Amino acid sequence: MDTPADLAPNLAPVASLLGTWRGEGAGSYPTIDDFSYSEEITFTDVGKPFLHYVQKTRGPSGAPMHTETGYLRIPGDGTAEFVLAQPTGQTELCEGTVHADGDTVVLEFHASLLNSATAKQVSSTHRRYEFTGDAVTTTFAMAAVGQLMTHHLRSVLRRT
Amino acid sequence: MDTPADLAPNLAPVASLLGTWRGEGAGSYPTIDDFSYSEEITFTDVGKPFLHYVQKTRGPSGAPMHTETGYLRIPGDGTAEFVLAQPTGQTELCEGTVHADGDTVVLEFHASLLNSATAKQVSSTHRRYEFTGDAVTTTFAMAAVGQLMTHHLRSVLRRT
Repeated sequence: MDTPADLAPNLAPVASLLGTWRGEGAGSYPTIDDFSYSEEITFTDVGKPFLHYVQKTRGPSGAPMHTETGYLRIPGDGTAEFVLAQPTGQTELCEGTVHADGDTVVLEFHASLLNSATAKQVSSTHRRYEFTGDAVTTTFAMAAVGQLMTHHLRSVLRRT
Repeated sequence: MDTPADLAPNLAPVASLLGTWRGEGAGSYPTIDDFSYSEEITFTDVGKPFLHYVQKTRGPSGAPMHTETGYLRIPGDGTAEFVLAQPTGQTELCEGTVHADGDTVVLEFHASLLNSATAKQVSSTHRRYEFTGDAVTTTFAMAAVGQLMTHHLRSVLRRT
């Protein structure tokens, strides 16, 4: 994919993320039953030096499950920041790295969270996104509700 | 405005917020020059017990200035939570109250923030939204970059 001509120069390493990706995922966690879901993520250029991000998942019946939103920042020197709001009552400040090599872009983050008074308590998360050509594999682990950092979600999405 | 029939019951106090609001604002802060902007905020029902929120501002020339996004949660007992992501590198967890009385809805929040390593440091914020009929007045104060809590933004928007 060619880089849009007017994209902010700092976003060049993540230009190939622009657009919408859809596919299937599976979830597990020690405190709940395993589950599956369909997922859609969209990265949008808003004419500024960051990308807007929104994610939505649906259960097997098509009912809306999770959604999250925020911004992907690429400050430079191989660093990446993913600033997220969770409707479950958490803010998630993800800091990490971006590696772009050919048609592969890998984003990897560890996050600090704030939990609202009425939310389940999530202590920390680990996110990884491996974009290769027209596919992305996402993985998400979290330390939450008294559990240590544990794998929670994995999905494989394709560019729409 | 009537409450949509399928809106989650906990959102009844904020049903009148649904839709898009547009208008003008003015900003000031001890460390910068005064400025003016046009603003648009949208609250959307996504079929879940929270509202999706997105805000965009533009400068006098029409150039995009700020944007922010997140979720409005109404846990009950007059409490409200506004979970926000900032593209400037902050997460902003706002906790406070909702008061609905006739055609007036007042939301008031104090926030805890996390700042990314490359962001300007914002320590805390105070937000107030007063919706009355087809208008909303928003005010925003913050303690940031070494300043104590100080008024920053005020806007008056109308339902579109």
